[in-house]
This record gives sequence, structure tokens and C-alpha cells, in this order.
Amino acid sequence: MPTKADYLKDPIEHIDITKFNPVPLVNSMKNMAFTARDLARAADITDRMLRDEECGVILCLAGSLISAGLKKVFADAIKYKMVDAIVSTGANIVDQDFFEALGFKHYVGEEKLRSGMFDAELRELEIDRIYDTLIDEEQLRVCDDVMHEISDHLDSGVYSSREFIRAMGQYLETKGCKTDSSIVYEAYKNEVPIFCPAFSDCSAGFGLVAHLHARGDAPKIAIDSGKDFYELTRCKMANPTTGLFMVGGGVPKNFAQDIVVAADVLGHDAPMHKYAIQITVADVRDGALSGSTLKEASSWGKVDLAYEQMVFSEATLAVPLIMGYAFHQGGWKNRKGKRWAEMLEGVTAE
Amino acid sequence: MPTKADYLKDPIEHIDITKFNPVPLVNSMKNMAFTARDLARAADITDRMLRDEECGVILCLAGSLISAGLKKVFADAIKYKMVDAIVSTGANIVDQDFFEALGFKHYVGEEKLRSGMFDAELRELEIDRIYDTLIDEEQLRVCDDVMHEISDHLDSGVYSSREFIRAMGQYLETKGCKTDSSIVYEAYKNEVPIFCPAFSDCSAGFGLVAHLHARGDAPKIAIDSGKDFYELTRCKMANPTTGLFMVGGGVPKNFAQDIVVAADVLGHDAPMHKYAIQITVADVRDGALSGSTLKEASSWGKVDLAYEQMVFSEATLAVPLIMGYAFHQGGWKNRKGKRWAEMLEGVTAE
Amino acid sequence: MPTKADYLKDPIEHIDITKFNPVPLVNSMKNMAFTARDLARAADITDRMLRDEECGVILCLAGSLISAGLKKVFADAIKYKMVDAIVSTGANIVDQDFFEALGFKHYVGEEKLRSGMFDAELRELEIDRIYDTLIDEEQLRVCDDVMHEISDHLDSGVYSSREFIRAMGQYLETKGCKTDSSIVYEAYKNEVPIFCPAFSDCSAGFGLVAHLHARGDAPKIAIDSGKDFYELTRCKMANPTTGLFMVGGGVPKNFAQDIVVAADVLGHDAPMHKYAIQITVADVRDGALSGSTLKEASSWGKVDLAYEQMVFSEATLAVPLIMGYAFHQGGWKNRKGKRWAEMLEGVTAE
Amino acid sequence: MPTKADYLKDPIEHIDITKFNPVPLVNSMKNMAFTARDLARAADITDRMLRDEECGVILCLAGSLISAGLKKVFADAIKYKMVDAIVSTGANIVDQDFFEALGFKHYVGEEKLRSGMFDAELRELEIDRIYDTLIDEEQLRVCDDVMHEISDHLDSGVYSSREFIRAMGQYLETKGCKTDSSIVYEAYKNEVPIFCPAFSDCSAGFGLVAHLHARGDAPKIAIDSGKDFYELTRCKMANPTTGLFMVGGGVPKNFAQDIVVAADVLGHDAPMHKYAIQITVADVRDGALSGSTLKEASSWGKVDLAYEQMVFSEATLAVPLIMGYAFHQGGWKNRKGKRWAEMLEGVTAE
Repeated sequence: MPTKADYLKDPIEHIDITKFNPVPLVNSMKNMAFTARDLARAADITDRMLRDEECGVILCLAGSLISAGLKKVFADAIKYKMVDAIVSTGANIVDQDFFEALGFKHYVGEEKLRSGMFDAELRELEIDRIYDTLIDEEQLRVCDDVMHEISDHLDSGVYSSREFIRAMGQYLETKGCKTDSSIVYEAYKNEVPIFCPAFSDCSAGFGLVAHLHARGDAPKIAIDSGKDFYELTRCKMANPTTGLFMVGGGVPKNFAQDIVVAADVLGHDAPMHKYAIQITVADVRDGALSGSTLKEASSWGKVDLAYEQMVFSEATLAVPLIMGYAFHQGGWKNRKGKRWAEMLEGVTAE
Repeated sequence: MPTKADYLKDPIEHIDITKFNPVPLVNSMKNMAFTARDLARAADITDRMLRDEECGVILCLAGSLISAGLKKVFADAIKYKMVDAIVSTGANIVDQDFFEALGFKHYVGEEKLRSGMFDAELRELEIDRIYDTLIDEEQLRVCDDVMHEISDHLDSGVYSSREFIRAMGQYLETKGCKTDSSIVYEAYKNEVPIFCPAFSDCSAGFGLVAHLHARGDAPKIAIDSGKDFYELTRCKMANPTTGLFMVGGGVPKNFAQDIVVAADVLGHDAPMHKYAIQITVADVRDGALSGSTLKEASSWGKVDLAYEQMVFSEATLAVPLIMGYAFHQGGWKNRKGKRWAEMLEGVTAE
Repeated sequence: MPTKADYLKDPIEHIDITKFNPVPLVNSMKNMAFTARDLARAADITDRMLRDEECGVILCLAGSLISAGLKKVFADAIKYKMVDAIVSTGANIVDQDFFEALGFKHYVGEEKLRSGMFDAELRELEIDRIYDTLIDEEQLRVCDDVMHEISDHLDSGVYSSREFIRAMGQYLETKGCKTDSSIVYEAYKNEVPIFCPAFSDCSAGFGLVAHLHARGDAPKIAIDSGKDFYELTRCKMANPTTGLFMVGGGVPKNFAQDIVVAADVLGHDAPMHKYAIQITVADVRDGALSGSTLKEASSWGKVDLAYEQMVFSEATLAVPLIMGYAFHQGGWKNRKGKRWAEMLEGVTAE
Repeated sequence: MPTKADYLKDPIEHIDITKFNPVPLVNSMKNMAFTARDLARAADITDRMLRDEECGVILCLAGSLISAGLKKVFADAIKYKMVDAIVSTGANIVDQDFFEALGFKHYVGEEKLRSGMFDAELRELEIDRIYDTLIDEEQLRVCDDVMHEISDHLDSGVYSSREFIRAMGQYLETKGCKTDSSIVYEAYKNEVPIFCPAFSDCSAGFGLVAHLHARGDAPKIAIDSGKDFYELTRCKMANPTTGLFMVGGGVPKNFAQDIVVAADVLGHDAPMHKYAIQITVADVRDGALSGSTLKEASSWGKVDLAYEQMVFSEATLAVPLIMGYAFHQGGWKNRKGKRWAEMLEGVTAE
């Protein structure tokens, strides 16, 4: 039987969109058909959104994107002020990005592992599998423990996931970030708030459960889902022109779309999201939100119709092309980061 | 232009699996191929899981299932003690089930509406669209308001979503449930806990945001995502043999799978989920968890390999067949409900 | 290593729609959403098409449907005069239906075989795999040989695939049909023409290649793709009201749709197909015809818009429900078979 | 109502892979996950196949690829000797490539047309729609007429589709090719045989039907599906090392895979296809061949396992990247075209 070291030898390498220029390729796709044309239009809208200096850009992340090699794309998007807030599944932020910031890596799994026929062997070796990617479960347990440690160091009380993730950034600032590119750390430095509306649904959950269990009846921390929603809604109210760049669907898509309605509930006549891009392989025909069209969102008053585009593609293919196009077009160069986290620190202080 | 009444005239009718017997049909599929054989095997495993009296059954719901006409299937599953806990997206529980319990309905939308070409018109009429289904947005705002009202009536403090949803059940008990079949109300009566790990990502979010905004610096409620995870993990520890019946993927799938690891983190050597069924149209090839195979979950130590089955089908087709099969086979008749909510009331009281 | 007999022990069993009544189930789906509602509408249109006594019904088959256990559904559809012509991939008709009529069977393959990890072993044992279904390759070679034999017994000259398949029916009539339900044999007895527009793309191809090779410069047979198209177009001209029941997409879908245009090319102002049902998992977004909507076909003047319905489902699930519904509703009871093969025998005699 | 000219104003432009270099991008994808890694591996295998000078490369085309803007990619592949034979659906070769060689164009259709809501209007204007692409039906009828004309000019007798398509190349040679890049014409000049195993299933069918109808009992031409298969099998026997580059699935995929078995039937112990790439959005789970894995093909003795890769992506996105990579890597520069058409002219002369 192969050893753990046999399996975990080729690390996933993150693509660097600053190193190649897909502009001529994407421009060539503008008058083709099907996904190529959709992708070219999505790239064009993204560029347009970044040139609209009033627009606050919200990046939504669902699916295993960071372990798949897209970490640097999103970390660079923060660094170059292309993004003002992030809404994500917990896995991308905690188990994958923060995990790498602690010095760990994801590994290339051989194609045959996808068959599922080796999962019992992987289980025995304490290796976790995401389709064709491998993780050392012992390292993931270290990540769980750090989450527990951060929970214990926070004063007891109610936090948004954004506040907790900011504390993760502070942890990296203090202890040192052990990777050259981290979403959590870059967001911390650039005052970009990150929200994980289902925060316990990842490595954070294991840390929180351990914290709650250890504290028993003593005061403890709580991660308030409502506070998350309130905070992101405050961003919308403070900066009414917004755009969504959504990779995958799920909770992040819905959550970010809903702030238009939430602002309205609070008596602010906020406009719909002016720009909306979604990259997804989800199917429209099962009625789940992940695949629901952006037109459908307009019936709910969430997304405007003029600048919306769905791209039916797996993210590892489409994201480098679209974000690479936007990077090299340079429309973001006049943007100043909105630094919404600064504003929220005031808002949410208790 | 048609009026609102023109659009909202044919209500969605919920399928009643007690009224037809799909057993001969499903049995005929056992030695076919492809999805038919998978579905027949899933039905068989479901029956087997219900005959295993030690097994605690966790139902996971993602996608717009209740508005699609599956409400009675799940409400009956609770009523007939086929289910011991539910993990769901907020939309199914609040915007759809509770919404109907308040006396409102979902409506059949004409096929042409799917094209998205009428969404501006629907927007003007304040009609929300889910693919081929319509909702009166004014009624949805009433639902938001009731969520706000329930938030305001709770003592300030930290709640799990389960506790909040239980309060929704109490509300129906007090004010009257205005529909003949409700998941929230049936769960309340049968002590079946319901968890929505991303609780603010639905109509509940609008109520919570309104509550937080109105309260300002005054004491308020918080919905703690960590507490949700801790509570469901307690169920696993109290009742180690468990099975998952998952419709769709998303947060509910991941959350329910993760409690095996969480129990381990707390020092309990809990076995993997013994049974696991998933009905999904999600694609395995994008690496998102929604479509990840149950075999992959076994590499993480979450799901056992002996009794797992994925069914690649849209839920409205597969759920009535599988649950109808399980109902008419009667394997559940010796089951006693686990009444986990009673246990958790003790656990989570502060 | 397991033997061939270990692998080939559980035969695929063909579902019998005359044995269970899905009418109450399908009726319950009419006011649901998503695929359930689509399927119920497709069932209703199918019934309506069968009650329209003027309508000639063309069944289109693509995908491995017969090996999957749907043989008896289609054979019964011929027997009960629910179908007037068939357009199919060669595999369904030759490698699968005729193969079983020669006395051979398809076998259930264990789920783990789907992983592809055992294909080298299967190769060694001369077992062919279709996803989760197995075939004895030696038996398939017998089928190839019979096709060669039939080719050699035909007078040299030009044939449509329909004429060749009719000869296969005659072969079964003479030698005995060794299965209780066969599409080829039932069609032969009921004068239902079967067309395989890419006839050499299956076991027939191996027989034909052997025939051509053996004959060398001597006179031989040819299977004329143009003659196929001409013959089916003649059916349309003789019986202008037509409906399509399409399972899968591919060549059969396109071929059958195109006869409307072909009739027009020949100066007959034939109406579009009045009814059209398609059951498919193909995606609309890649622009291939298999997933193109029936509305798109209407822009080409092929399919009328009033009675068309696509059902997004794998066929083994949807076909038994829709055809079972149509069978038990009994709308076909007044139909007389059109016996188009009789007409074509006259037309195509040289 | 808009006029035909309003709809048909922006022509589809064909992407030119010689003009941009995707090598750095594709190399960056090698150690990512999911589709990116698959695509990078497919690109690497393609390059490897082209460096294998013994290998005969067979390009398989299904789906509306030419109308989508991929014409120049494939025409250039012929021109630069990267391809030795083509197996395609008729639509790509006749209705789309030859159609453009006659001087006609495809047009960009607005996104809203995809909804299907404008198809009645398009019908009235005699505009045909392929998802988001438009065709002038009157021009398509001219193409049908040219096919009729070519049929009439051929001596009566039996032809393979390859022979007919060669006659189409001769037609362009004589009358002038009215586009700067044509698959049919480039193949004619480079002795690359093109096979359409379901030849009547496209504009060719309309021409053939008209020919058969007009000739009545007089001698006429036949397009022999068996001869196609025999000819491609002869290529395999003459050049045993082969590789497949498949875009989409359908008949072309199956047909090209089957020649290994056909060679065996003729007593030649031909090796399996040594290289195999498939780009598809088809789903593996419905058992249709379009989505069946290349591993499954190995159980049939068709495809070797060492160098095979499926890429789950819509073709307009993946083809330019993979073929662009292969072009700029230059592995093809030592290749000499196999000029199989020359060999077949001898073989098939009667």
C-alpha cells in the first residue's frame, strides 16, 4: 500500500492571472456562439463594472475553488482593489485559504482516485479527497484547533462571521502568514469584509463546537447569522451602486442578492445590483437557486437586467479567463477600495 | 397587461404519497440500468434504514422543494415517524413551508415565464418567480413581518436556528396553522428538530435584520451558527447510528455529514453515517460538494460505503417514488420517533 | 480474478408498463413544479396525440435504451398500435434488440464497475460494458455474423436501412424469435417501418464491412442513407398529421424533424409535426441538437408550438411513467396502425 | 416587427488560433484541479499525439461547431497537417462549412432569442435559429439545391459519403470557394477524407431526396453507409497507430471508435486507438455513448487507457485552448499528412 507521502507529493499550484494576457483570446470570442460569447460578454461586463468607480463589488464564492488553484486570483483581486466584499462558503475561507496560510498545502490526486475505489485506503491514511485533490487530515485538524484557539481568545459575546474572520486575519498578522498569497490576510490588510453566512459549516464549525463544549455554562462566543446579513445590508445602504461577481451558486449567491430586499425592509430604497456575473455548472431546470438565472432574480427586485451574464462553465476554466481579461484591461486602476470593513467596525461595535 | 390575479390563480398542489402505491413500479426498476436501477436501490436502502430501529434519520433539504409541491411528502414523513431531524435551507422552511402555514400559497406559472422575458412585468406586479412557480411578494412581506414579530417576542440572547424554528411552531400552535400540512408545525408537535445553518439566508434574515435595526444598542437576539452545529452533533453522540436522506446538496448536505467529525473532535468515537441517500442533479465534475459522491465523503470518514446511493434526478420526480415506496413498504411502522428536540431543550437551556 | 460467468449472472429485466398503473401518480404531478409538471404535461400530450386518429406517431430512440430495460415498453407500443414508425440509432435496434431476439441477454453490472477501474479485466474476459450493464462480446460477434449472413442473402443492390431491418424481421420469422418481446419482430409483424439513418454505426456495420470485404469487386449490397430519408418523407406526405415521441436526441431527433422540410422540398406543403415530446438529459447550453428546445425547432418550421414538451430526465425513469400513463389512459384503443411499411414496399420496389 | 436585415447583421467570426498563444495559460492549469487540470492534460496528450509521426489523427465533430465560430480552427488543423481524417455530423460539413464556402454566413442572434419567445417571428421571416445563432433559410435552400445539383452530376452508382464530400470539394475548386477558410475545401486539397456516417441527416439529405424523387425509376446515386465504414476501417488497417480528437459525442464518436473492432472482424489485429481526447458537456449518467467515458471504450477494445482524457466543457471554450496549445507547441511541424484520400480513391474505385 502506498504511504501518505506517496499520495501527498505534488502540491496544487495557484494560477497567476498577472502572468499571461488572455485579452486577445477573449476578444476573439465576442462574435462566436454559445459559452465563448457568453464568457466574452461576462469579461466585458466585469471590466465595465470595475470602471464604474461608484460601484461596490461583491465577490461570491461557492464550490471548492481555493483548493482547486484559484486562491491567487481572488487574493490578487483584493490586493488590486477589484473587490470590496466577499461572501463565501466556509470551506473556501477557512479549510482552504486559512489552512494554506497556516503553512499547509493541497495536493494533486491521481485521476484514478476520482473513481472512489481508493477511498477506503485514503481513509486509513487519513487523507481527505475533493474529487481529484487531496488533503492531509491531520493538518486539517490543526486548522480546527487554531479555530478553537481563536474562539477562546475572543471576548465572549455575539460576533458576525466577518468579525471572526477579521480575527483570523489578525492571527496571521501576529503569527505570520505562511503562504505568499492569502485571501483572509489580504482582506484583513485591505479592509475587505468577508462573510460566511453558514460559518459553522466548515473547519470553523469544529473549532466552535469544541469551544462551546469546553465552555459549558460559562460565557462563550456566538456567530450570529443575522448580524452577517445586517452588516452586508449596511454596505449596500452606504454604497447603493453594487455589482456581484459570483462563482458558483449556493448560499453566497442568495445571501448577496438578498441585501437589496433587506435594505428595502429597513426603509432604504436601494437600487438592484447593477452588474451581475455568475459562473456555474448548475442546471437551471431543477429550480434550485444555484442555477436560477439572473433574469429570475430580477423578478425579485434583486438584479438589474442590463448588465448580467451567466457563464456555463466549471470555474477553473472560466475564472482565469474572465478575471485575467479584467486585470489586463486595467479598468480597475482608478478604483479605490471601499474599505467597508472600517465602516462596519464602527457599526457593529457593541 | 394581465393583473396579479391573472397570474396567481392555479395554486401548487402538494403530492400525497399515501394515495398511490409505487412499489410495483419501483420493484420493476431493480434489474434495469442507469437511474432506474439507482432509484430502486435508493428506495430499498431507505426502507432498510427505516427498519433499523436504532437509526436516527436526518432529512436534508436544499433547492426549492416545498414550493415545488413536495411539502406534504416531508410533513407526512415527520407525522409517520420516518424522520428524526431536518437540516434545510432557510427558504424551504421559512419562505415556503411557514409561509403556507400562514395561509398563503404558491402558484403555477405558465411555461413561457421560464424564458425570463416577462420578469420586468412580474416585477411591476410584485410577483416573485422561482423558475415555473409564482409567489405574491406582498404575502412574502407579511411572512418577513411575522419573523420580525417572533424575533421581538423572544427574550434577548443567543439561539440556535432550531430554537427559533421551534418558536415558529409555537406561533402556529397559538395562532392556528392555516394549511392542512406543515413541516414546521408537524416537527413542533413531534419533537423533530429543524436546523437551518444559514438561517438569515431567507425570509428569516429580513425579520432578523429588522429586529437588529430596530433594537439598535438594546439587547437583542442572535442566531448562533455554532450552536446549531453543536446541537446536531449532540444528537449524533446520543444516537450513534444515523442515516441521511438528502434532497439536493449545498449547506445541508455538508452540515449533516460533518457531525461525524464534530463528534470525533469532542472525543466521541462516533461511527460514520450508516445509510446515505442523495437525490441531485448536481454534477460531480465541478468538485462542489453538492455533487460530490458519497464515496468521496467516506474518504473524510463521514459516510459508510455499504448503504449509500446517489440518484441523478430532479427531486420532484424521484422523491415521490422513493418516499412513496418507503411509505407503502411500511418498514417505518415499528419506528418510534427519537424526539431529539426534547433532549436538546435540556441541552441548550442556558 | 472472477470468471466471465461471475460477471454475467443477473440479466437485465425489461419493465412491463401493462403491469402497473401510474395514472394517479402522474396526475398528482400536474400542479407541482419543475420536472414533475413537465412530465405530467408530456404524458397528457402523448395521450392526446394517441387520441388523434389522423396522427402518425414516430418514435425516435437514441441512447442505450434497450440494454437498459426499456425494450418491452417499445415493443408493446408497436403491438398496441401506439407507434407507426421508428427512427433509431443502430445500437438499439441491432446490437440490443435483435441481439436479444437471437437469444442473448444483457447483464446487470455491479456499481463499482462504473468507476472504470475494472475495464482492463473486462477486456480480458471479452465483456463489454455500457456504464452499469454488461454484454458478452462473443455473443455480440455472433450478432455481427448474422448481420453478415443477412447481407449475403439479400440480392445485390441498394437498400434503405428500413428494408434491411425488415429482412432482419423475416430472419426472426423464419428462424424463430428467441425472446418474448422484440421491437424488430413486432415491427415486422405490424408493418411498422424502422429506420437507422447511420446504419453502419453499430453491429450492422461489422456485418456490412465483412460483406463488402468478402465480395470484393463482385456485386454487393449498399445501404442508402438518402433512400431512408426519402422513405420517411413519403410517410409524412401520405399522412400529413404527425407527432414525435423522442427519447434522447442525436441523429434520430434531427432526421425525424427534417422530414417536414424534405416534404416541402418535394413540393408538398406538409404541416409541421403537430405533437412533439422529448425526454433527455442533454443540455440546452451547448447548442447541440440533442438538447435544443422544441421551440427552436419551430423556427426551422419543423415542430408546432402548441403541443410540445421537453422532459429533463434520464429515460429509464421518465419513459415508464409517460408511456405507462398513455397505456393505462387507453387513448390508443381506437387507433389503427398506419402500416406504413406496406406502403413503402410499393414505393421502394425497384 | 424587425426585418430580416435587422436580425442578420452581425456575422459570426471564426476564432484564429494562430493569432494568440495560450501555452502559458494552459501550462498554469497543469497543477490546478477539476476541468483546468483535465484540459491541460488533454492539451499535452494532443501535442504528444502530433509528435508521434506514425499516428494517424482522426477528428470527430458533433454539435453545431462550425456555425459557432470554430471553422477556422479545424480548417487550419487540416492545412497544417494536424489531422488525417474527419468523421462528422452532416450539419457541420454541409449546412455550415460548405454553406459558408458558397459565400453565405451565420449571424449572431441576440441573447433574448434563446428564450424561444421570438421563434414564431423568426419563422415568418424565414430565419432559422441554433440557440444564439441565426441562418437565412433562403440561403440554406440554395445550399440544398447545390447538393441536388452535385447529386445529379455524379454518375449513377454507389458512393461513400467521403466520395460525395470530395465531389463537393471539386465543386468549390471549379466554381471558387467564397470564404477564406473551408474544411471541405482544405480537406479536398490535402487529401483528407471526410466521413458523415448519417449523410442524409442534413442539407445533403434534402438534395438527395430531391435527386431520388426526380430520377424516379431512372438510375440514381446511393450513399452507402457500409462503404463509409469500410473505407475508414481501411485507413486503420493501413496505418495501425491512430488517435482520436473528439469534439462532442454522437455518431462520429462511436463510428470512429468502432473501426478497431471492424479491422479485427476483417482479420487484422489492429491495436486500439492509442490516443483519445473528448471534449463534451454530455453526462456520463444516462449511459448514452456521447458521455460514456473513454475507459468504458477500453472494455470494448476500442481505446487504450494510457493517453485518454475527457474534458467536460462546452467546445467553444475548450477547443481554442487545446488546439491553440497544440498549434503553438509546434509538435505537428514534423508531421506529414497521411493523404488517406489518395489511398481510398484506389480502394473504392469500382
